Amino acid sequence: MAEYLAPLKDMRFVLQTLADFDAIARLPGYEEFAGDMADAVLDASAKFSTEVLSPLNVAGDRAGIRWEPEAGGRVRMAEGFREAYQQFIDAGWNGYSADPQHGGQGLPKLLGAAVQEMWMAANLSFSLCPLLTSGAIEALELSGSAALKAQYLPNMVHGRWTGTMNLTEPQAGSDLAAIRSRAVPQEDGTYRIFGQKIFITYGDHDMSENIIHLVLARTPDAPPGVKGISLFVVPKFLVNTDGSLGARNDAYCVSVEHKLGIHACPTCVMAFGDAGNFGGGAIGYLVGEENAGLKYMFVMMNAARFSVGLEGLGIAERAWQRALLYARERIQGRDISGRLPGNVSISRHPDVRRMLMLMKSQVEAMRALGYCVAAWQDQALRASDGETRARYQALVDLMIPVVKGWLTETANEVAYLGVQVHGGMGFIEETGAAQDMRDARITTIYEGTTGIQASDLIGRKIAREGGTTIKTVIAQMRLTEAELKQTGGQPQAIGEALGQGIDAVERSVAHILAGYSEDIAAVSVDAVPFLKLMGIVCGGWQMGRAALVAQAAIAAGNADAFYPAKIVSARFFADHVLATAPGLAQIVVNGGASALAMAEEML
Amino acid sequence: MAEYLAPLKDMRFVLQTLADFDAIARLPGYEEFAGDMADAVLDASAKFSTEVLSPLNVAGDRAGIRWEPEAGGRVRMAEGFREAYQQFIDAGWNGYSADPQHGGQGLPKLLGAAVQEMWMAANLSFSLCPLLTSGAIEALELSGSAALKAQYLPNMVHGRWTGTMNLTEPQAGSDLAAIRSRAVPQEDGTYRIFGQKIFITYGDHDMSENIIHLVLARTPDAPPGVKGISLFVVPKFLVNTDGSLGARNDAYCVSVEHKLGIHACPTCVMAFGDAGNFGGGAIGYLVGEENAGLKYMFVMMNAARFSVGLEGLGIAERAWQRALLYARERIQGRDISGRLPGNVSISRHPDVRRMLMLMKSQVEAMRALGYCVAAWQDQALRASDGETRARYQALVDLMIPVVKGWLTETANEVAYLGVQVHGGMGFIEETGAAQDMRDARITTIYEGTTGIQASDLIGRKIAREGGTTIKTVIAQMRLTEAELKQTGGQPQAIGEALGQGIDAVERSVAHILAGYSEDIAAVSVDAVPFLKLMGIVCGGWQMGRAALVAQAAIAAGNADAFYPAKIVSARFFADHVLATAPGLAQIVVNGGASALAMAEEML
Repeated sequence: MAEYLAPLKDMRFVLQTLADFDAIARLPGYEEFAGDMADAVLDASAKFSTEVLSPLNVAGDRAGIRWEPEAGGRVRMAEGFREAYQQFIDAGWNGYSADPQHGGQGLPKLLGAAVQEMWMAANLSFSLCPLLTSGAIEALELSGSAALKAQYLPNMVHGRWTGTMNLTEPQAGSDLAAIRSRAVPQEDGTYRIFGQKIFITYGDHDMSENIIHLVLARTPDAPPGVKGISLFVVPKFLVNTDGSLGARNDAYCVSVEHKLGIHACPTCVMAFGDAGNFGGGAIGYLVGEENAGLKYMFVMMNAARFSVGLEGLGIAERAWQRALLYARERIQGRDISGRLPGNVSISRHPDVRRMLMLMKSQVEAMRALGYCVAAWQDQALRASDGETRARYQALVDLMIPVVKGWLTETANEVAYLGVQVHGGMGFIEETGAAQDMRDARITTIYEGTTGIQASDLIGRKIAREGGTTIKTVIAQMRLTEAELKQTGGQPQAIGEALGQGIDAVERSVAHILAGYSEDIAAVSVDAVPFLKLMGIVCGGWQMGRAALVAQAAIAAGNADAFYPAKIVSARFFADHVLATAPGLAQIVVNGGASALAMAEEML
Repeated sequence: MAEYLAPLKDMRFVLQTLADFDAIARLPGYEEFAGDMADAVLDASAKFSTEVLSPLNVAGDRAGIRWEPEAGGRVRMAEGFREAYQQFIDAGWNGYSADPQHGGQGLPKLLGAAVQEMWMAANLSFSLCPLLTSGAIEALELSGSAALKAQYLPNMVHGRWTGTMNLTEPQAGSDLAAIRSRAVPQEDGTYRIFGQKIFITYGDHDMSENIIHLVLARTPDAPPGVKGISLFVVPKFLVNTDGSLGARNDAYCVSVEHKLGIHACPTCVMAFGDAGNFGGGAIGYLVGEENAGLKYMFVMMNAARFSVGLEGLGIAERAWQRALLYARERIQGRDISGRLPGNVSISRHPDVRRMLMLMKSQVEAMRALGYCVAAWQDQALRASDGETRARYQALVDLMIPVVKGWLTETANEVAYLGVQVHGGMGFIEETGAAQDMRDARITTIYEGTTGIQASDLIGRKIAREGGTTIKTVIAQMRLTEAELKQTGGQPQAIGEALGQGIDAVERSVAHILAGYSEDIAAVSVDAVPFLKLMGIVCGGWQMGRAALVAQAAIAAGNADAFYPAKIVSARFFADHVLATAPGLAQIVVNGGASALAMAEEML
């Protein structure tokens, strides 16, 4: 039995009904994805994920990567990864999101989200390589000169070359203002880059012919802080004007990290300009304007943050599939209600059932919310009128920290439950559940911790605009609440729980808006509980919408058992997850002072 | 800087005030521990934990254990463990809890809890060896014949020999009724044992001269199910009548598990009677009566469950200390409120502060509850009148699943937060936070999963007696609530949160009592959320008591900064943890139906 099968039925349900794929496929430039094309993409991606990527997931975890300091810090991937990557790029997957003018497929973000989810679920370590390349492609597409684009994009879009993001330095983690790497301008218009970067995902590996590092550094006369950071392209091998590869640049992987998870993914310490190949400095090329690097990086980072949210979804789906399979196959103990004879599968035991439902319903809510935000990104990019684009962009900006923060935190909970469902076997590495938990652990950390996301959410995304956008979200959620309540039956109960959730959000938003300028520290204590609340309520909103669609399908005589199951799942989410919303609001409104009251030295 | 320092100040506070150590030291048989003796024990244990056990924690995780199949399945411990164990037994620690008549120290359970917490925090893998030996000692003390006691106890109490518990079989995890191992009686009164046991902690190792396996097996004419299980002593080396070691018994470690955590602790697959040394079967000796094995094991298991709760406390304390140290030393970013100049330690950032407080206040609540339940165990064992002993025993029976379940689940949350506080460094194994998280993960699983604890709690401990004991706990908590409210100020706010928590418990208990016989499956869905609710509210109760003690100390003019800090910690716990109680009650009361509504095949 395959370890991972793409959940195509639920994916299609969310794409078609909740995220309205037909509307997205009508947007300018996406027309070719209408009808069968999207289905074909989903099927092909599912097949590739199950047959090529997933079988390498466990082997990659065991083998890890091999760093060869004696060979210039070269990193060798685990067995099978090179071949899988070659198949991946041969099939054209690497350019899935890139602009067709550079050879990309130009998939709508919505369709791309489903495709990404599959790769991430199948093999998180592998998926990070194309993810980082996509980010680098996007930065170059948006900010690179025509010459840089022409020289780099075709090979990066193809996948022959991969990309990296070089932000973090030992003294500058979440605080990019502290970046010290230097870029010294040369007479020929190039720069010499000096500095050390840490936590560089796929900073070196042996799957591609070249690696294109995007590096943040300061020019000599740059202003201090985040306003003095510039972005540079620093290729591992210099690129000749004819496009062929030239000399080895002075950019080396000088160490790799020994990590809790994603063992098959190289996480590198990169040294730029340390070896002295060119008499000092790695050769780099400015992207866009000097001192505007952070702005460009933020574009990449927003996309990357959204994608890390999808990583959470993918890992959670994988953990859920594994737990379900085990719980169905493991026969132990009697049915507590005495209704079933003999020993039963543990999925019949109420507490295991509760854990399975908690995994399932949260995964569904995560997917529903994630895909809807992907669709909003498409509207923000492609809607025909500017007002619509701006409206959706504001929604996207608001929701990206929620998707990143909530999907990844929930993924960790789901993977934790996955271990628990397995009992003692969950603690044994061979089972695989432990790997899911270890792999999931990075997702709440990289591309900005949950704390960073939450701070962005309450500050830049809510307080700065006086809550305008979140109030429109609240208004939309109220419409769903009303519709659920009018429908009666299960939807009504879901609507009541959703209503309490929305009340909790409103109460919290009022508190944040009132306190943000007055006592920013106390309000900031509430940021993560508020982010979780937003995730839960927005997830519950999408589950409510799903229940309405399901109810309508049943009313229309559709006998597919998927629909009643979706209603149960939404109801469970309301009873077990939305139920925590008032408590979270209580923490948000009431929790600031006591968190800050302790004298620092008494901690 | 040491990786772990025993938190002696908080330990002594809890021992002396909340758990009333003076009263325990007045119980018959504990008199020698009054006054300085207990202090000396705490200091010595703290020193041993910090200086001997803790430095081996990381090294043991890296090195793991070595299984040598060619050498009869012998297990070699990581470097330093043999020497540490020798020091441990030379100092007399191994017999800390055992009866002085067999050479033990006979520490009160309360003092023993503090001592255990230190060992577990310092080195969980190491601590499991004496923990298992203690369990085996306890089973023999309670149920063994005089001959067995004389032959085995002195060496086990000394630690020259260690003990194991052999319950689980591949097809019988939580369901001991499914045990198949066989015990065939011999003419000489011994038995021959056949079968395979899995997940046997310290099933083999090289730290002691002999290993005494306690094994559950069925005699040929035993009734089916749990009523046909007997308990046997199966020593690794047979013991001659003069006490010297004889032939190698047919009990071998045939495999070891590759686990997520506790890498330095051997988890063995044990085969009994497979090698044929004696023409078939391992030689075993019946403990107590035939078919009463499960009853004896349950005595051991209750003690072990309580101890695993303390493991949760220990790991959480270690994770907390590590996170605090890092957060204080890591300088990054500005003070968001603008009050402090320059870059500040991340402990000053509100979200990091919130996480630190969540770790600190929960660790304190866990310790307070755990130690109080330890003191109740002493009362249950030693109080002079039978009525008092019975009353405390009922409290202990009620609380053991709460201590086991809540302390371990919370430990996992705390260790998870510990990783998060470290940001990217948390994901790097060298930091140590990841090991805490990996090690903590077993605690909600072994000695009965959280689901098993919760089922025990609502069934045997509440429903079966119509809620008698839990109602007395509720009444006690109401007294604390009233006292807090009368005190005014911070205690009053804590009292209000506690009151809401107690309401939530009452509502949930009423639901459980009403539904248990009517719809046991639906009520069982609520078991784990209810267990968490109980843990939170009982922890909040103890924090409320701590706040009252602190308030009184301050009112009496005591200027120790420990007291105001304790009040802040209790208030934080009320605002951030007790605040979730009503939501949990909502899940308990309302969550059963939707968890069970999904058709099994639609999961």
